[in-house]
Amino acid sequence: MTTSYNEIAGRSVERLAALSDGIFAVAMTLLVLDLKAPAMEVVHSDGDLWRSLTSLSPRLLVYMLSFMTLGIFWVGQQTQLNHLQRSDRSLSWIHLVFLFGVSLTPFSTTLLAEFLSYRLALLIYWLNILLLGTALYFSWECAKNKELVKPDMPESVPQAIQRRIIIGQALYAFGASLCVWNTYLSIAFIVLVQLNYAVAPRILRSRS
Amino acid sequence: MTTSYNEIAGRSVERLAALSDGIFAVAMTLLVLDLKAPAMEVVHSDGDLWRSLTSLSPRLLVYMLSFMTLGIFWVGQQTQLNHLQRSDRSLSWIHLVFLFGVSLTPFSTTLLAEFLSYRLALLIYWLNILLLGTALYFSWECAKNKELVKPDMPESVPQAIQRRIIIGQALYAFGASLCVWNTYLSIAFIVLVQLNYAVAPRILRSRS
Amino acid sequence: MTTSYNEIAGRSVERLAALSDGIFAVAMTLLVLDLKAPAMEVVHSDGDLWRSLTSLSPRLLVYMLSFMTLGIFWVGQQTQLNHLQRSDRSLSWIHLVFLFGVSLTPFSTTLLAEFLSYRLALLIYWLNILLLGTALYFSWECAKNKELVKPDMPESVPQAIQRRIIIGQALYAFGASLCVWNTYLSIAFIVLVQLNYAVAPRILRSRS
Amino acid sequence: MTTSYNEIAGRSVERLAALSDGIFAVAMTLLVLDLKAPAMEVVHSDGDLWRSLTSLSPRLLVYMLSFMTLGIFWVGQQTQLNHLQRSDRSLSWIHLVFLFGVSLTPFSTTLLAEFLSYRLALLIYWLNILLLGTALYFSWECAKNKELVKPDMPESVPQAIQRRIIIGQALYAFGASLCVWNTYLSIAFIVLVQLNYAVAPRILRSRS
Repeated sequence: MTTSYNEIAGRSVERLAALSDGIFAVAMTLLVLDLKAPAMEVVHSDGDLWRSLTSLSPRLLVYMLSFMTLGIFWVGQQTQLNHLQRSDRSLSWIHLVFLFGVSLTPFSTTLLAEFLSYRLALLIYWLNILLLGTALYFSWECAKNKELVKPDMPESVPQAIQRRIIIGQALYAFGASLCVWNTYLSIAFIVLVQLNYAVAPRILRSRS
Repeated sequence: MTTSYNEIAGRSVERLAALSDGIFAVAMTLLVLDLKAPAMEVVHSDGDLWRSLTSLSPRLLVYMLSFMTLGIFWVGQQTQLNHLQRSDRSLSWIHLVFLFGVSLTPFSTTLLAEFLSYRLALLIYWLNILLLGTALYFSWECAKNKELVKPDMPESVPQAIQRRIIIGQALYAFGASLCVWNTYLSIAFIVLVQLNYAVAPRILRSRS
Repeated sequence: MTTSYNEIAGRSVERLAALSDGIFAVAMTLLVLDLKAPAMEVVHSDGDLWRSLTSLSPRLLVYMLSFMTLGIFWVGQQTQLNHLQRSDRSLSWIHLVFLFGVSLTPFSTTLLAEFLSYRLALLIYWLNILLLGTALYFSWECAKNKELVKPDMPESVPQAIQRRIIIGQALYAFGASLCVWNTYLSIAFIVLVQLNYAVAPRILRSRS
Repeated sequence: MTTSYNEIAGRSVERLAALSDGIFAVAMTLLVLDLKAPAMEVVHSDGDLWRSLTSLSPRLLVYMLSFMTLGIFWVGQQTQLNHLQRSDRSLSWIHLVFLFGVSLTPFSTTLLAEFLSYRLALLIYWLNILLLGTALYFSWECAKNKELVKPDMPESVPQAIQRRIIIGQALYAFGASLCVWNTYLSIAFIVLVQLNYAVAPRILRSRS
């Protein structure tokens, strides 16, 4: 009997988690490189320094937004991987697609922040989030169908994981569709959804 | 019975530790990119090379300072996580805020080093340290209240951890307040506090 | 009896895996730095933004190609390491050579993408892949000869691992040799081989 | 009884190993950023491309040298950490100093490669290696004195570890001292020592 390479490839959840943490860590810190201390020549007083730093504040906000988006999906991916007993080749590749989306997040967030009033920038940002959500959804489908989940997982876990993804993506899609009226409205709605997922989980606890 | 997503999200201390190590590693090495070898055209002797490198030495000092600050907080965070049996969603987000502060440290340290005589630069540096300390303090509060700590932890550990944070932050705040007289005095005091935490733990051992 | 340093050096598979994940993570995200949001000054409408982003799309394709290449070899290396019970000094150095090849992949992929019609660019890209494949092949030889593999490994695994490397490298070499006629033909063939390994494993399952 | 913070801080070998792997991974890949694909405008034939790439080859050599140096010390640190059952605060800080030296290696290697004929560049490169070796030596002293090593460690291990460091550093110091006559002689000797440690361990096995 021959063993297919595909049967033995990519089975370690630990390696997948470690690669993910590395890519998240680099993606989360890359944007700091955009924060440059002002040049000494243009600063002659605390007032000058204040003005220079104020002009940096949009970049700082973008950085916070990007960090928060990545944080949300880092928690989401971790929650899935914690329930797996092993990985396999297909699951590894679904997560590599997910990680590709992660590495694009700093770019799409910067784009959105610089072109707040353009629908295209918003659309790209939303497509990025959609890619992340879709990859996570199919990763869980794959894990369930191939029985990669731990046998002691409570029965209600799969539903909780997928419901969260669907509700979240529905909210993001609704937010993105608001750009037909106004992109600022879209962005405000999406940021509120993200803030809710990041800092105010209790509000929606009963529903999600 | 339905399982809330928030109950099952972000429970892995190992993943949190791995993400933290990744972000610390990137933040600790980012500033090396500012150390550029001098251009070959301007160097014609060992003397020229010496002068070129001497002009790099402030950047090297900033880099050491930033590395030391991050080292102190890396040890501090590790000490907490070592005593946790599991994480949860709120704790994960408190640590994501902490890691956001970590990723800002190279920026605030550079700012301080370039504008040594400006109170605003000192204030920002101190706010960064305050953010790190506050996040660690609340992370421990959260871990205690939600019973995330290991059951075999000695009773005196929580007090030791929080006392260290409070004493440290009090010293930093005192140092920062010295800038009313002179920013150099502030910086000297803060660097001394950091050196104490990094290389001379025995001096304060009886008290902290 | 004296212990040789070489007998005790580099024995941890976990450390090797962690260093690998770190290097893969950095290499996989480095190219994102080449994706820069367009300058605000040149964009005055959604149409302008669309044209600016369209000019970025070759870079995005390069980035996807590089990510996919690295993903293939990450899965390949992981599959080997999963079957090792320990490492040793020679194996660690073979994998360091492999990781050196990994860190060069973003460079050789960019080179290929910018000089699609030049045989030299194709040759360098292929040499990079050859280096990765050769290192993995000898890493497995080394692991088998020195009995570093887990005792419970099924007998058919070693053959599956090496057959995959040989078939893969034969396909890549054939693809590269097509450049005698036309480099585009070469590239198309190589990308098809990679897509097959990444997303369509079922097609070749019976043979590899 | 009160617990001193210093008694409970920095005890995890796993965290220390993970931070080290992260910093090594970033330091090992940073120099790739110096390898830029040639501009399309200046390349009109395979010959042009060949000449452009030839001008990159010194950078590639520097990169290989830096990678090899870091590989040697990565194996050296790993060998020590593998024999520890736990870490403590002092040991963590010794390793943070070691990691600071690691993060400086790309800089000192670049400096050496650009100023091959300058004694100062050689001296700085040697000081970097001396810092790495000294930190590893004292880390092992600290681990032995504080009984952090695993109880099942063979008795001959400590001697093998320290003998390797002393012999290595003696060879590096001798090589550096050759610069009194000629820096090229120094560099050749040091690179030979490193190649021996990296790829030809069998030659010195009987002695080290």
